[in-house]
Amino acid sequence: MTVTLTAFASSPDRGRGLARDMRVRWALEEVGRPYDVRLLSFSDMKTKEHLALHPFGQIPTYEEDRGLRLFESGAIVLHIAEGGEGLLPTDPDARARGIQWMFAALNTVEPPIVELSMAGLLEGDKPWFGERKAMLEAQARRRLGELSQRLGDADWLDGAFSAGDLLMASVLMRARACGALEGFENLAAYLARAKARPAFQRAFAAQLAVYQAANS
Amino acid sequence: MTVTLTAFASSPDRGRGLARDMRVRWALEEVGRPYDVRLLSFSDMKTKEHLALHPFGQIPTYEEDRGLRLFESGAIVLHIAEGGEGLLPTDPDARARGIQWMFAALNTVEPPIVELSMAGLLEGDKPWFGERKAMLEAQARRRLGELSQRLGDADWLDGAFSAGDLLMASVLMRARACGALEGFENLAAYLARAKARPAFQRAFAAQLAVYQAANS
Repeated sequence: MTVTLTAFASSPDRGRGLARDMRVRWALEEVGRPYDVRLLSFSDMKTKEHLALHPFGQIPTYEEDRGLRLFESGAIVLHIAEGGEGLLPTDPDARARGIQWMFAALNTVEPPIVELSMAGLLEGDKPWFGERKAMLEAQARRRLGELSQRLGDADWLDGAFSAGDLLMASVLMRARACGALEGFENLAAYLARAKARPAFQRAFAAQLAVYQAANS
Repeated sequence: MTVTLTAFASSPDRGRGLARDMRVRWALEEVGRPYDVRLLSFSDMKTKEHLALHPFGQIPTYEEDRGLRLFESGAIVLHIAEGGEGLLPTDPDARARGIQWMFAALNTVEPPIVELSMAGLLEGDKPWFGERKAMLEAQARRRLGELSQRLGDADWLDGAFSAGDLLMASVLMRARACGALEGFENLAAYLARAKARPAFQRAFAAQLAVYQAANS
């Protein structure tokens, strides 16, 4: 089976691995599945052809040559985890808790961090930006503080490394990029542990190579 | 097996079904599983005991008497869908697409709507509120426009009603409550179809009864 992803032809994060294809590449590397990538410009993402694949005109998408087409990085990572080994426990209760952390990463922890990181782009020139930024930082750091409390000194969120940790680490990369991770030492160590995984490193190098080729 | 949820003792939405326990109640009604509810005040939600169940100090949580404990409404709905019938197709590809819509509802459509609905609460008294509100409305309506395009004149997002539709409808209830749904006639009809389901109506009545009892 051949798997094809879509990713930015020239990522706005300049290859720092913050774009959402990184999660999918990483998951594919964890389960040892090779993949192809189709690169898209911003205007490609708004074509009728791409909107048929992804109704919100974003990346990544995931296509199997046998017919399945998916969008939404969390759902793609879950599909990969279910079809491979090492991203979700086999015990049903532990599996449900792994999936719980996937949703927690994307629905509870990511939104305030995206809001904080987008504020600079969308409102950096507005007179209210300073006051808003302090408010958003406090909001993001409250969430991260709760996560830090729960993690404590454990290596991963629930037993062995899972797709929940993969998504949470990808969210923490964004938190660090906008400065919100400072002072949370156990979260920084957790992120470092995740990034030390060989699968992460292969995925990171692959997305960086795309950016470098496009900008060399 | 006995299932116990947590929900607000007095919901801040005044029983309009916008709190996240509504999704879980609805899913349980769809698969025909009875449940108990433990009601929490805002201060109960921040106790050590509740934080052990839900690290972010929110509702709902889900407990089975045989031991499983989950938080995060999307993960709970997925767990219920996997253990019952009628919320996810049995065909593996259609099932993956149903789950894709669950993530799309919670990670792509809900965040700009929550941002818009919270802005009034958090920033309603700020001098910038008018300009920010227009920006947030445009952002939420762009997402809803893309969803409307994809839905077209179909009854549900992908074939039969699924857990993806359940979560998307619950997000659209919030969109309507903050005025963002106006003009999207197919989305309004989709929401009305979802709300006409007997399982929705039973769940809605149950959460409304809690609010009415607390405030009578």
